[in-house]
Amino acid sequence: MIGKLNHVALAVPDLAAAAALYRDTLGASVSEPLDQPAHGVTVVFVTLPNTKIELVHPLGDSSPLAGFLAKNPAGGIHHICYEVEDILAARDRLKASGARVLGDGEPKIGAHGKPVLFLHPKDFLGTLVELEQA
Amino acid sequence: MIGKLNHVALAVPDLAAAAALYRDTLGASVSEPLDQPAHGVTVVFVTLPNTKIELVHPLGDSSPLAGFLAKNPAGGIHHICYEVEDILAARDRLKASGARVLGDGEPKIGAHGKPVLFLHPKDFLGTLVELEQA
Repeated sequence: MIGKLNHVALAVPDLAAAAALYRDTLGASVSEPLDQPAHGVTVVFVTLPNTKIELVHPLGDSSPLAGFLAKNPAGGIHHICYEVEDILAARDRLKASGARVLGDGEPKIGAHGKPVLFLHPKDFLGTLVELEQA
Repeated sequence: MIGKLNHVALAVPDLAAAAALYRDTLGASVSEPLDQPAHGVTVVFVTLPNTKIELVHPLGDSSPLAGFLAKNPAGGIHHICYEVEDILAARDRLKASGARVLGDGEPKIGAHGKPVLFLHPKDFLGTLVELEQA
């Protein structure tokens, strides 16, 4: 069911410093910061030959990243995102297996303009998993 | 400098259950477990179209995963691995930038038979980063 790894998201306390680290020290191609008010984050995309790393930083007062960075002030790996062909079929299959979908269970439009869902870390080996329709 | 994302490693408390989750619930292709005594882990490889997920579990009494699983008993994302063309050149460039290489700083042979190094999480946004020579 799952296809490509779309991205790995790293929560970072200082977006400019994180972008500089990936650009200058690791020698990768990084984007300008992009605010995503609907998701409460600002994102810098790091383009690798086979996938993306997303450097994410809280935006606004109710960012879903605030709690994570309070617990991990230096930053850390926040989630991984797998592509699926049909997000509603994937959701229904996962729910039937007993897995929990976060929020109201309906896909939202994600950072790439495509429907996304988040799955409960307790049902996926302690890892926050995002699904994105390919 | 960094090339492809070679893999994301998820530390898991129950390798058989984790492999079943990725195979049956997420519908991915998973390998048989492979013991890697030199690294203190047993690994199940999850093959995605563009990269790999590695489900890793402690092997032996001095596994580097023991502390991580003590802190994260349900499991969690342990590290990410980037490919580099020349691991010694990459190491020297990173050391010159002030980044710390774990252990004695000399590459070891990793899970895929290629030289690997680990970089200090404090120098990489709270993320444990492995480099593997492509």
